[in-house]
Amino acid sequence: MVKLYSRPAFDEPAWWFVISADQILTFNDTQLPFGCLGELPFPALDDYPVVQLGELRERTCYLIIADYLDDNFDAGEFKPLRNLLDAGDMEKFALAGRARQFSDFLSTHRFCGRCGTRMQAVDWELAMHCHQCQHRCYPRVSPCIIVAITKGEKLLLAQGKRHKPGMYSILAGFVEAGETLEQAVEREVHEEAGIQVKNIQYQLSQPWPFPHSLMAGFTAEWAAGDLHIDPHELVTGDWFSVDQLPAIPPPGTIARTLIEKAIGKEKQ
Amino acid sequence: MVKLYSRPAFDEPAWWFVISADQILTFNDTQLPFGCLGELPFPALDDYPVVQLGELRERTCYLIIADYLDDNFDAGEFKPLRNLLDAGDMEKFALAGRARQFSDFLSTHRFCGRCGTRMQAVDWELAMHCHQCQHRCYPRVSPCIIVAITKGEKLLLAQGKRHKPGMYSILAGFVEAGETLEQAVEREVHEEAGIQVKNIQYQLSQPWPFPHSLMAGFTAEWAAGDLHIDPHELVTGDWFSVDQLPAIPPPGTIARTLIEKAIGKEKQ
Repeated sequence: MVKLYSRPAFDEPAWWFVISADQILTFNDTQLPFGCLGELPFPALDDYPVVQLGELRERTCYLIIADYLDDNFDAGEFKPLRNLLDAGDMEKFALAGRARQFSDFLSTHRFCGRCGTRMQAVDWELAMHCHQCQHRCYPRVSPCIIVAITKGEKLLLAQGKRHKPGMYSILAGFVEAGETLEQAVEREVHEEAGIQVKNIQYQLSQPWPFPHSLMAGFTAEWAAGDLHIDPHELVTGDWFSVDQLPAIPPPGTIARTLIEKAIGKEKQ
Repeated sequence: MVKLYSRPAFDEPAWWFVISADQILTFNDTQLPFGCLGELPFPALDDYPVVQLGELRERTCYLIIADYLDDNFDAGEFKPLRNLLDAGDMEKFALAGRARQFSDFLSTHRFCGRCGTRMQAVDWELAMHCHQCQHRCYPRVSPCIIVAITKGEKLLLAQGKRHKPGMYSILAGFVEAGETLEQAVEREVHEEAGIQVKNIQYQLSQPWPFPHSLMAGFTAEWAAGDLHIDPHELVTGDWFSVDQLPAIPPPGTIARTLIEKAIGKEKQ
């Protein structure tokens, strides 16, 4: 259970995840602040919330939301969270992802969506509560589907608008209210690529903290339809021979795992 | 794509899903209002939002949020949504579920959670937008796991605090930020029943509109630990011989489907 507004010990070394939107405070690019609160350049903790995130190498990890730091705070540098992924430190990246999700939750639940009153943090669970109308909110987890689609010896890959140039990946999208995961796969594939799929098989899941997704990963096979890539969602897309794939996401990502599962299946 | 604030035709027969929290406006217990807007006892539509939900038997379905009706509106009766499930009309129940989710979304996003300003509906997608700070919100879909656990020829069933007396079901709970579906199964089972499980296998998913869940259904097998039912979450629970099960959820529910899959697997 994550504790909101915990009180870190003054003299116990800990990890500090200081989050500002999609960025995290680092020293020397990917090093996170580590040490006793008394030795670190953070202002007095009485004035802002600290969330206990979990443990990393047997030391407690805390989230500090950068909004609450002094304007003239200038230790370290804020760098994209994805740098931790690129550096290959999956454990640290996972904790930074939690930190980013909680930071997003706290900053978007200052006021009650129902009645507009200032919300208060609940002290025994990670929630914000409105004492005016009793509305209570929890961190949002948004289910998404991601699917590797094969057609014989070919794999469907597309370039998303926010991908690095030249980087291809598989199709993904948010699950809408009232649909199953499998229906979300069918709808999303039809919307983005104009095709129908069959043999939709769940493979694995992975949380993805940009900002609060839970990716449910599937493989599927082409069933019908010509490829029509939706230009509003994607830059380009095509069937690629499994022996000649373009640049794809790195190992450790669910996209890569699904691509390998889909290709492995085709080669059997 | 669900349209927010659509304009129903005055003289075209349609279905009207009038929602008040977990209740829906019915006539004669489970009949929903059907007919032309001009013939029905709703006040003029200019004053409140109407959401187009989908189609039922080739007629358009609209959501009306009961909060916007006149105080002296007294046609029909508000009955629990679950009555539609008990009556076995799964298509109507699914649409009522969507209606309930959208109604919940609109009523809890009147004000911006980030800055407290009144939010406006986006006219081309189902979203609320803050013109002050540009925060945009979409209907929430909360992923949950539900799992049927077997131990040899026995099945774990528990009585939830909100179940009908005598009714048993399988374990379920919300996925937390930063965990996979499979980790959620392990955590939830350990928290609620004190045991470890193995062979966690995804089976199917189902949306569940109370108020906005997406159930990811698993089967699993007992691996270790004695049963310790958490009294905060559950009334009671035990291993039941698969040949002598107590009252369980009706066909059409994901709980029932998972129970049958888990039992079928044991009998193979």
